[in-house]
Amino acid sequence: MTRNTYDPGPQIAQAGAINLGVTDLTKSLWFFSDLLGMEIVHQDVGVAYLRGYQELIHHSLVLTQQDHARVNAYSFRVARKQDVELFHDQLVDSDIEVLQLSSGHQRGRGEAIRFLVPWSEHPFELYYDIDKPRAAESIRSKLPSSSSSRRGLGVRRIDHFNVQTSPGTINQAEAWLRENLGFKRREFIMMPDHPTTVMASWMSVTSQMHDLAIGANRLEENARLHHVAFNLENYHDVLTAADRIRDLDIEYGVGPGKHGVGQAMYLYIHDPGSDHRVELYSGGYQIFDPDWDPIEWQPADIPNGMTWYGDPIDLSVGSRGRYTTPSAGLHG
Amino acid sequence: MTRNTYDPGPQIAQAGAINLGVTDLTKSLWFFSDLLGMEIVHQDVGVAYLRGYQELIHHSLVLTQQDHARVNAYSFRVARKQDVELFHDQLVDSDIEVLQLSSGHQRGRGEAIRFLVPWSEHPFELYYDIDKPRAAESIRSKLPSSSSSRRGLGVRRIDHFNVQTSPGTINQAEAWLRENLGFKRREFIMMPDHPTTVMASWMSVTSQMHDLAIGANRLEENARLHHVAFNLENYHDVLTAADRIRDLDIEYGVGPGKHGVGQAMYLYIHDPGSDHRVELYSGGYQIFDPDWDPIEWQPADIPNGMTWYGDPIDLSVGSRGRYTTPSAGLHG
Amino acid sequence: MTRNTYDPGPQIAQAGAINLGVTDLTKSLWFFSDLLGMEIVHQDVGVAYLRGYQELIHHSLVLTQQDHARVNAYSFRVARKQDVELFHDQLVDSDIEVLQLSSGHQRGRGEAIRFLVPWSEHPFELYYDIDKPRAAESIRSKLPSSSSSRRGLGVRRIDHFNVQTSPGTINQAEAWLRENLGFKRREFIMMPDHPTTVMASWMSVTSQMHDLAIGANRLEENARLHHVAFNLENYHDVLTAADRIRDLDIEYGVGPGKHGVGQAMYLYIHDPGSDHRVELYSGGYQIFDPDWDPIEWQPADIPNGMTWYGDPIDLSVGSRGRYTTPSAGLHG
Amino acid sequence: MTRNTYDPGPQIAQAGAINLGVTDLTKSLWFFSDLLGMEIVHQDVGVAYLRGYQELIHHSLVLTQQDHARVNAYSFRVARKQDVELFHDQLVDSDIEVLQLSSGHQRGRGEAIRFLVPWSEHPFELYYDIDKPRAAESIRSKLPSSSSSRRGLGVRRIDHFNVQTSPGTINQAEAWLRENLGFKRREFIMMPDHPTTVMASWMSVTSQMHDLAIGANRLEENARLHHVAFNLENYHDVLTAADRIRDLDIEYGVGPGKHGVGQAMYLYIHDPGSDHRVELYSGGYQIFDPDWDPIEWQPADIPNGMTWYGDPIDLSVGSRGRYTTPSAGLHG
Repeated sequence: MTRNTYDPGPQIAQAGAINLGVTDLTKSLWFFSDLLGMEIVHQDVGVAYLRGYQELIHHSLVLTQQDHARVNAYSFRVARKQDVELFHDQLVDSDIEVLQLSSGHQRGRGEAIRFLVPWSEHPFELYYDIDKPRAAESIRSKLPSSSSSRRGLGVRRIDHFNVQTSPGTINQAEAWLRENLGFKRREFIMMPDHPTTVMASWMSVTSQMHDLAIGANRLEENARLHHVAFNLENYHDVLTAADRIRDLDIEYGVGPGKHGVGQAMYLYIHDPGSDHRVELYSGGYQIFDPDWDPIEWQPADIPNGMTWYGDPIDLSVGSRGRYTTPSAGLHG
Repeated sequence: MTRNTYDPGPQIAQAGAINLGVTDLTKSLWFFSDLLGMEIVHQDVGVAYLRGYQELIHHSLVLTQQDHARVNAYSFRVARKQDVELFHDQLVDSDIEVLQLSSGHQRGRGEAIRFLVPWSEHPFELYYDIDKPRAAESIRSKLPSSSSSRRGLGVRRIDHFNVQTSPGTINQAEAWLRENLGFKRREFIMMPDHPTTVMASWMSVTSQMHDLAIGANRLEENARLHHVAFNLENYHDVLTAADRIRDLDIEYGVGPGKHGVGQAMYLYIHDPGSDHRVELYSGGYQIFDPDWDPIEWQPADIPNGMTWYGDPIDLSVGSRGRYTTPSAGLHG
Repeated sequence: MTRNTYDPGPQIAQAGAINLGVTDLTKSLWFFSDLLGMEIVHQDVGVAYLRGYQELIHHSLVLTQQDHARVNAYSFRVARKQDVELFHDQLVDSDIEVLQLSSGHQRGRGEAIRFLVPWSEHPFELYYDIDKPRAAESIRSKLPSSSSSRRGLGVRRIDHFNVQTSPGTINQAEAWLRENLGFKRREFIMMPDHPTTVMASWMSVTSQMHDLAIGANRLEENARLHHVAFNLENYHDVLTAADRIRDLDIEYGVGPGKHGVGQAMYLYIHDPGSDHRVELYSGGYQIFDPDWDPIEWQPADIPNGMTWYGDPIDLSVGSRGRYTTPSAGLHG
Repeated sequence: MTRNTYDPGPQIAQAGAINLGVTDLTKSLWFFSDLLGMEIVHQDVGVAYLRGYQELIHHSLVLTQQDHARVNAYSFRVARKQDVELFHDQLVDSDIEVLQLSSGHQRGRGEAIRFLVPWSEHPFELYYDIDKPRAAESIRSKLPSSSSSRRGLGVRRIDHFNVQTSPGTINQAEAWLRENLGFKRREFIMMPDHPTTVMASWMSVTSQMHDLAIGANRLEENARLHHVAFNLENYHDVLTAADRIRDLDIEYGVGPGKHGVGQAMYLYIHDPGSDHRVELYSGGYQIFDPDWDPIEWQPADIPNGMTWYGDPIDLSVGSRGRYTTPSAGLHG
């Protein structure tokens, strides 16, 4: 065997965290902690760090009080400590401007790098080291694989990011993410009226159908967030969430329903402190096959892909077409 | 960066299939296909190949008519085509006898190798190539990520193997699996009365908490199967299965209940055609963290680990202590 | 108190059964028995009698092969044997033509009476005696309160009838049902554009929110069936049914969703052998209060009433406005 | 027929409320309101009135601070206003001492009567009038059939009382309840070792399998409460409750499991402020048949009756045999 002909190079391990700029931190904390049940691991003036009950790391969500709602960073964990530097060098070799973020730039996190995804301009951060603090004893779970007890609507972990860029840049952006960050295309849709342009692509570095999805934004806006998804354990948890949320005065999006794409239950709601769209997501299939063939959805099947059953996603004016959130630039 | 100093070598991608020797194939087919809802992809005299509705590959279960119930093979898929040969060379280098199995030795499968796990003597087979046949149109799903429609009790895929060896060999066997096949220890229990001996270890090469578990068999028997697990999508599916199965004259084991270990719902039943123990398994947490610290269960917490809630697993006479299934030798 | 003068007058005890004329009995039997899981208690040439797994009586559904899809009878059980005759006399006193049906007119059923509901012209039958046959041993449940084991999609019993009449007769028909048959109004909606006319009224003689609902048919058709509902035990069963049915080539209506009216999960599908609309219904609240105040839905709240969450019922072209089924006349 | 002589005699309509004496009101309020999700409708010094989110009446639970845990009253609503007096006269005619309780004796409730059940000595109260206050706007539901939004573990209403008396008095007590209060026997078990003595009887005046159950207390104690049950809408809600409660330091009893008796999911826990046993109960079949034949469980089937699947109820030392709560006397 000839080992030294093979080297995977740096790899991304998981979607780690999102840093959301919110205009009303108090409302956002009520939403993510009191309602959705996430733990506030640490809170400072104007910033809070949260995680789901099955996350042992320091945080998967950062809420930052700001004048305008935006995404400050999409953070990914890399597979090995050295991959932070390996990615840095690789990006610089490609003439991409990279910022080096010192340990603690996000509390509990080690050294990281920050750059804008070419073509789509989404601010990505890559890191490896992160603290694993125990929860306060009052909320700590007796289960060693849970940081805290299930609370509220039962958000257990972050699931994926769904971002958008303009139709004119999506092909290049989607290809760049696959070729440079190792995301594998799992399912995808080409534009029915423009079959050489990606309409949406669901990609992962894990067994999830997607850790990251990118779609074409008809408003021709780059660097947009469509939604960030958090994971609930069972379909029924999504029904319970819908029942609770319908009775609250927060913006209710679409759902519950089951996507044909990924075969997962969805419920789209909006953080009342920022209007960022949040998906409560449950189930779906796992991809362990090493030779997965990306699934292309044909135009006639797209409605099935969006909604297999339940509250339909209206592609014309519904979930895709409406309000999306901008992102910060490289320097914030 | 110094790429050519790094090479992961061959890797296992997933638990692929189990080949069960059964004494009454007709009963076993009724159990796995009519009751559990698995698709019979192909059937010959004395042998049948089955898969769950979310499996696109040829099979995850082989049922072979035999005089005695036993496990003929635990099959794993490797990450790359060349890994079959790389593992072959690596095993031979370690003076392990390896059989080369030609393409089609299991229908639909490419070239494979077969060997006995040192110390535990379980017959493992490694392969990469496998066909991905479409289901018959009459049962085909409209969902491209499902091979067939959900049927019966809704088995969607194989989940994991739980095997046993004697207390005198488990430490060496468990270490060998980690060091030579790349399984990562996720959760484990040391024997309360013999703290240097592994009582049970849950290991994976995927984001599952375990693709393979190995436990100490108090009867001092090597090469035993405790159970093979198949995956259902929701906790509620396990309740529905229990309701249905309690009304049938097949051996009902333990459950429904929720394991603290892995946080998954369980129901143990027995194939009436072979008495192999089958677990219907749902949920649990995913491990995407690249630096997961194996969780050790302390003696006082073991009951929580076995059963967080629901029908308790009796460690003395219950699920662990009773009937387990032998395995075939290297040459079958 | 004067107990010996005690006479409660005739009362209806429950919605007992529906007799559906179907144009393709084979397809209807596949739908109700193989798919929905109802037991075929008895089958003759051109007719079959079915029940759900929690029904101990002979049948709740009769399927009759006919040239045209229609409802032959809506049958209700009365509270006491003598109530059949008491209702007969009461109806005749009101100059309503009543047919007397001999024992066995529906197999397993005792003497019954048949009449058309004034104004709406729906054919109602009232009976008391009905056999309680045990299921064949092969499908019998070990639970004495279940006639057979849960099968298929898990229909456990009939739930309610939802019928329609023309806007010009609904006020009189709805009042007649309350004043003469003892149905209590539980929830109701007046026509937004004609506030003195009932749009829909949900009524019951039991603790269910409705055993019978009547709505205004915009096509000005009397004697129509909107749907007959069968009961599933849990919301999750409705999701499982949707998953299965979406993959079949039968007409899929609306759902899953949760009604605000009654707080129950719904899924509307159509019998492929007759196109009668069938609702799979689960949950909802029970009314034990002896002084229940009927709930009136205001126009602005009607969308919430139709769909609290999930797949919305489109009042303009959706579930209400489209195809409904006619009924037989008094003499069939 | 002679309608004008119509008099059905007094009837009980529903299990209305339980008044629990608790030794730590603060803890009990946390348990019933914060954890189980019941609304605190009114609170005074030493007393609180609560209801579930689907109860429109003033309360179904009264918590009274006392030196010892006991049941102060089992309250039932009667079918008509005059039934309070009719029952009063009927009881007095039977030489039973009856107290007349003025309006407001329980806040929000009208005039009531109180007496001890002959032979079992449980303090029963009968009333008709009760206020139907709207919930505070901050928690009010948009659903008119819900008083407040679903919260916490989702208790929606009281379900039933399960009481105990001594083996020497149970036959007389159970017969008295049926003959004098109109409870119908739905399912029952005779003592395996003493077949002429009732072991347990499940009775109802509604379509529920039981509003009231009475069992033989092996400790020969009369006037005991085994548990009071509150209703959750779906089986899955019971699993969610178990997950949450296992992580709390309150006494966990038995469950989740499914009773064969009644076919409902159960979870037994204990109020940390009083140790009264509370059952979280979901599902089960409805009895609409006017001629229901009481189901007798044979000795060999009793284990199935107690636990169809899930965490088994140990009849020797388990749920039946252990701690039960005493009741107040006639005068409190």
